[in-house]
Amino acid sequence: MNSAAREAIRTMFDGVRADGRAHLSPAEARLLCDAYGIPMPKDGLATTADEAVALAASFGYPVVLKIVAPQIVHKTDVGGVVAGLENAEEVAAAFSSIMDRARRHVPDAKISGVQVQQMAAPGLEVIVGAVTDGSFGKLVAFGMGGVLVEVLKDVTFRLAPVTEADAAEMLGSIRAAKLLDGIRGGPPADKAALVSIITAVGQAVSDFPEIAEMDLNPVFATEDGASAVDVRVAVDFAEREMPNRPPKDEIVRAMNRIMKPDAVAVIGASAEEGKIGNSVMRNLINGGYEGAIYPIHPKAETIEGIKAYKSVKDVPGEIDVAVFAIPAAFVPGALTECGEKGIPGAVLIPSGFAETGNIEGQRELQEIGRKYNIRLMGPNIYGFYYTHKNLCATFCTAYDVRGEVALSSQSGGIGMAIVGFSRSAGMGVSAIVGLGNKSDIDEDDLLTFFEQDENTQVIAQHFEDLKDGRGFAEVAKRVSKTKPIIALKAGRTSAGAKAASSHTGALAGDDKVYDDILRAAGVIRAYTLRDMLEFARGIPVLPTPTGENVVIITGAGGSGVLLSDACVDNGLELMKMPDDLDAAFRKFIPPFGAAGNPVDITGGEPPATYKATIQLALEDERIHSIILGYWHTIITPPMVFANLVVEIVEEMKAKGIEKPIVASLAGDVEVEEASEFLYRHGIPSYAYSTEIPVQVLGAKYRWARGAGLVR
Amino acid sequence: MNSAAREAIRTMFDGVRADGRAHLSPAEARLLCDAYGIPMPKDGLATTADEAVALAASFGYPVVLKIVAPQIVHKTDVGGVVAGLENAEEVAAAFSSIMDRARRHVPDAKISGVQVQQMAAPGLEVIVGAVTDGSFGKLVAFGMGGVLVEVLKDVTFRLAPVTEADAAEMLGSIRAAKLLDGIRGGPPADKAALVSIITAVGQAVSDFPEIAEMDLNPVFATEDGASAVDVRVAVDFAEREMPNRPPKDEIVRAMNRIMKPDAVAVIGASAEEGKIGNSVMRNLINGGYEGAIYPIHPKAETIEGIKAYKSVKDVPGEIDVAVFAIPAAFVPGALTECGEKGIPGAVLIPSGFAETGNIEGQRELQEIGRKYNIRLMGPNIYGFYYTHKNLCATFCTAYDVRGEVALSSQSGGIGMAIVGFSRSAGMGVSAIVGLGNKSDIDEDDLLTFFEQDENTQVIAQHFEDLKDGRGFAEVAKRVSKTKPIIALKAGRTSAGAKAASSHTGALAGDDKVYDDILRAAGVIRAYTLRDMLEFARGIPVLPTPTGENVVIITGAGGSGVLLSDACVDNGLELMKMPDDLDAAFRKFIPPFGAAGNPVDITGGEPPATYKATIQLALEDERIHSIILGYWHTIITPPMVFANLVVEIVEEMKAKGIEKPIVASLAGDVEVEEASEFLYRHGIPSYAYSTEIPVQVLGAKYRWARGAGLVR
Repeated sequence: MNSAAREAIRTMFDGVRADGRAHLSPAEARLLCDAYGIPMPKDGLATTADEAVALAASFGYPVVLKIVAPQIVHKTDVGGVVAGLENAEEVAAAFSSIMDRARRHVPDAKISGVQVQQMAAPGLEVIVGAVTDGSFGKLVAFGMGGVLVEVLKDVTFRLAPVTEADAAEMLGSIRAAKLLDGIRGGPPADKAALVSIITAVGQAVSDFPEIAEMDLNPVFATEDGASAVDVRVAVDFAEREMPNRPPKDEIVRAMNRIMKPDAVAVIGASAEEGKIGNSVMRNLINGGYEGAIYPIHPKAETIEGIKAYKSVKDVPGEIDVAVFAIPAAFVPGALTECGEKGIPGAVLIPSGFAETGNIEGQRELQEIGRKYNIRLMGPNIYGFYYTHKNLCATFCTAYDVRGEVALSSQSGGIGMAIVGFSRSAGMGVSAIVGLGNKSDIDEDDLLTFFEQDENTQVIAQHFEDLKDGRGFAEVAKRVSKTKPIIALKAGRTSAGAKAASSHTGALAGDDKVYDDILRAAGVIRAYTLRDMLEFARGIPVLPTPTGENVVIITGAGGSGVLLSDACVDNGLELMKMPDDLDAAFRKFIPPFGAAGNPVDITGGEPPATYKATIQLALEDERIHSIILGYWHTIITPPMVFANLVVEIVEEMKAKGIEKPIVASLAGDVEVEEASEFLYRHGIPSYAYSTEIPVQVLGAKYRWARGAGLVR
Repeated sequence: MNSAAREAIRTMFDGVRADGRAHLSPAEARLLCDAYGIPMPKDGLATTADEAVALAASFGYPVVLKIVAPQIVHKTDVGGVVAGLENAEEVAAAFSSIMDRARRHVPDAKISGVQVQQMAAPGLEVIVGAVTDGSFGKLVAFGMGGVLVEVLKDVTFRLAPVTEADAAEMLGSIRAAKLLDGIRGGPPADKAALVSIITAVGQAVSDFPEIAEMDLNPVFATEDGASAVDVRVAVDFAEREMPNRPPKDEIVRAMNRIMKPDAVAVIGASAEEGKIGNSVMRNLINGGYEGAIYPIHPKAETIEGIKAYKSVKDVPGEIDVAVFAIPAAFVPGALTECGEKGIPGAVLIPSGFAETGNIEGQRELQEIGRKYNIRLMGPNIYGFYYTHKNLCATFCTAYDVRGEVALSSQSGGIGMAIVGFSRSAGMGVSAIVGLGNKSDIDEDDLLTFFEQDENTQVIAQHFEDLKDGRGFAEVAKRVSKTKPIIALKAGRTSAGAKAASSHTGALAGDDKVYDDILRAAGVIRAYTLRDMLEFARGIPVLPTPTGENVVIITGAGGSGVLLSDACVDNGLELMKMPDDLDAAFRKFIPPFGAAGNPVDITGGEPPATYKATIQLALEDERIHSIILGYWHTIITPPMVFANLVVEIVEEMKAKGIEKPIVASLAGDVEVEEASEFLYRHGIPSYAYSTEIPVQVLGAKYRWARGAGLVR
């Protein structure tokens, strides 16, 4: 758009603002659409039949005539609309009858005239729109039009503005996408024209944030074009509070000192067992933290054998982070002292702030934080763990199994579930972080830290809302290119959102928006707690697949069927087996076994059959991932199977061959030990489940595809 | 329909058969519709313009004219269709132009004339149809018409014939059901008229099974009527093989002797460890079976210390069931001897029949079975367990934990997963049965047995196909009224179906058909193996809910949110909390806790708070089910929580109060022990999962609603 056009639109909005209106007039909406190259049917206002005929002739037939009078809202009810007019005579006749009827039915109407509008060529009815979301800001929407989809809500969202590639991807994201390729053998819709409208809407709302909503409904798409028949634009000139987004390097610098501190102060450190300030001290000490620990206490000389100070300001050396274990009322004072000491981070365990209605108290902390440039974690949290520093800055039970996955939770209960599951599954973690009320540090600060943290390869986050969804999506889109991000968004449903709002004051938001935006940002969404935990456990263990060809090798035909179902459920491609490979597998399996895919080696086979087929699948370059189905027999007992799998996998790894393998074990309880053994050796394995291993593999694929790593 | 009308239809079909045609002509389809009271637009054939005008006048305007000539298939391509004719002049003109165009475009066409058809009032476009399914027989279908739903496949199926209640329920079962209530504030569709068409179609295909398919597409439904605009009927006069359905009492008599035998013969009993015939002997003996065991062996005097016989015919007493552990080739001979001995049941462990392509061999067994009235289990199975008789008639590991749930599987691997899971979870079972190739005994025989088995209260079945889906659905519909039935249908997806077909030769079938028919039969469908197992474990434990009001009581607000999501996912109603009850809960919880539902008692509360709120929820009659969310704290440790819950539940039970309760435990690994303790005391509980406990409760509700037990 040139600057004159932009200036014209600017002037128009200024006028709307001056008028105090909440919607653009049809003429203003048209001006906006024209400026952004959004095609609309031609139209004009006629005050006489002759004018109507002249307009129609200039547009080309057919046309539709509509009464224009502020008092007549439901035009069709008074016979104020006549469509399908094919020539001058019909237009003239329609003009007269419309005017007559309007005067008769609404005698006091102030009739401006009759709108003459070019009729859109019949085509596929779609909608394009934009809305303003509290968390994500401007969003562009695309969906099928018509009543059916009003009911079925077949619509998809992206952050505005959208690129042409994004817009094209939106066209393919709706359930009824097939319709765009042609209805009942008819011609396809002009996708380029739709892409152009979608990107234009995204640009318009980005250029002019006063556009609160745009609704192009319907848009008719034909074989060679698309046209917005009706355009409504709602405006809102209120200033939106901009989320606080420090520069990336500033976040990284502060977060590195907080998460990997050399010196920790514990404000409210206590010698009394059962007190939070004591639990934190013990966890720091017993967890093996090797940095300096400074207990802060008004009177004590030492706590847990470590010299105590009355204030952080009395501590001689630098402090990287202060962990708070004092009642809410004392937090502001102590936080100010941290500021004066120049401590860059505060871990605010205490509750009694926004979550109990004390919004003011929380705001006070935010102000102190901003004043002194202290990043705040919490309040109302369990603290955090960073295993690679042996750091348990929490009152919960200690956890020290190191690994590559960093987890966070908005809620304390979920944090404890993470700790319990991790310990039970022997899941190595790099960090577990509680975010609680998120007065400052939130999910995208963590993403920014973990992105550059050499100890973290996978990030899993539970949250009930995103205070700054747009900021999150932007960071996630970047980070997910190199490190998988798993998100469990709680409050997906109406009941869940209601519970979240009374729990953390989380804003409901449309779950479809979260779904689309998270997917577009390359985030792997988990829909249940257990899924998040299993994905967090499995994804770091699995090598990244390089292609879509998945092969099932199974001793249990029944498992093969269920594993195949699970592949479809999880968007995995069962490789169509090439003839030569089929023949190669057949050499190893009994004549009544089934090659193809699944490769059904049948139940009574010795270890050698499993071994030969798995080796073949690893060696053949056309196969990218392997799903194993094991059936417990006397001939190949569970641990024999597990050992042979690990052996062949390590043998191949030594030759540089590594592929994702997951396993489903059917059998008596010995399969549990075998599953654990396999998991410890890099093969996510599950007893009595044909779906969980495939879900985990599917999650890895979702990430790898988003990051462009799958051919 | 009177007998004259029926006779006319009969005669018509005889004519079609004699002609060797696969489809009814339009006139024949109309005859059928007329006979069943299915309204169609009026139509007639005109050979002159005057005839066309006369017909149109007799029907009422508007009408549509269509060329009728066998050579002209695509009528619109030659201008052979003119719609929307409003008066005699237009009809006459259209007649001439249609005839002209037809003669011009297809000079050699034999023109029969022009069809004059009343135009259906515009309305909602739906489809009604019937198909013949290999397993379920005649099915009636209802769905939305139009291109969108062609793409979205919004259709529902029921067994034909359907009652009016079934048909009405079908209208509500499609995703776009809302459209029937009126589009954009418009009038609703005439549901009674649609019900009448659906039941008529169901009756027609039931009365005349030669109707292979009926397709009423589109049917236009208006405010006061519905009319089938186009009706296509395909016929198939081939005889269908009727499934073998013995009378119920005969099934019960035979199955009782097989499943609860007083004497078991083991054909192929062996003293050699590792042999199947030895495993079966040891399992029988070590399992503690107290009936007579007769090892059958050509030479041995005794096996495992028990006197052996050369043939079952040498055994002095009666034998209820013979377990086969001999190679396939010897089975027919031994089975014949069983017949001569009058043994009513054979458990055919051997493989090497249909599953390896030996269809003939399997047919031979079926013939022997029918000749001697022996019911056959298998072949190609692991056998079966019936714990209340200490009976392990299998070569798999023994299992003896008694309980109320009977499980079966089509596949051996899945059977072993059932045994392993049961042992691991301490799940009590009444029976575990392998069905394998299902040459005779299948799922509905088991249902019929378990229905009257006093030791079984819940039935869970894994299958890849149903040989006689209709028989299954009919039995399941009856049995599910008193005992919950859980079904895991493997091969749901295209890939799964393909795997099933190469595994057990299972017929694919449309999964939507299975879904609809199983639901209509009151069966709880599990979509994954683990779901089936968890449902089998949890459903017998839970009391039956008497109403829809579910209340969540949680110490972890975050769990409350996820539990709420899970409630919506599983079709559970979170009770809207009445003011007085809300106030009553508030008395027990901190001021910043949230009453409403979830009742969020907050994390730091002592056992008394859990106890008081749970007691209140149990005592208040308006609450029907309870979901607990526990958060591990020092103040209320896991086992303290578990004990207090069990205590209050038992106290209430003593007062006659029993409600379903499930629990989600978030915390460190001690919550696992607490979960197990709770489960053992009747409260299905899960660590680190907010969804599984709710899924289990949801499954119980699905059953209870279907059985009419929920108010």
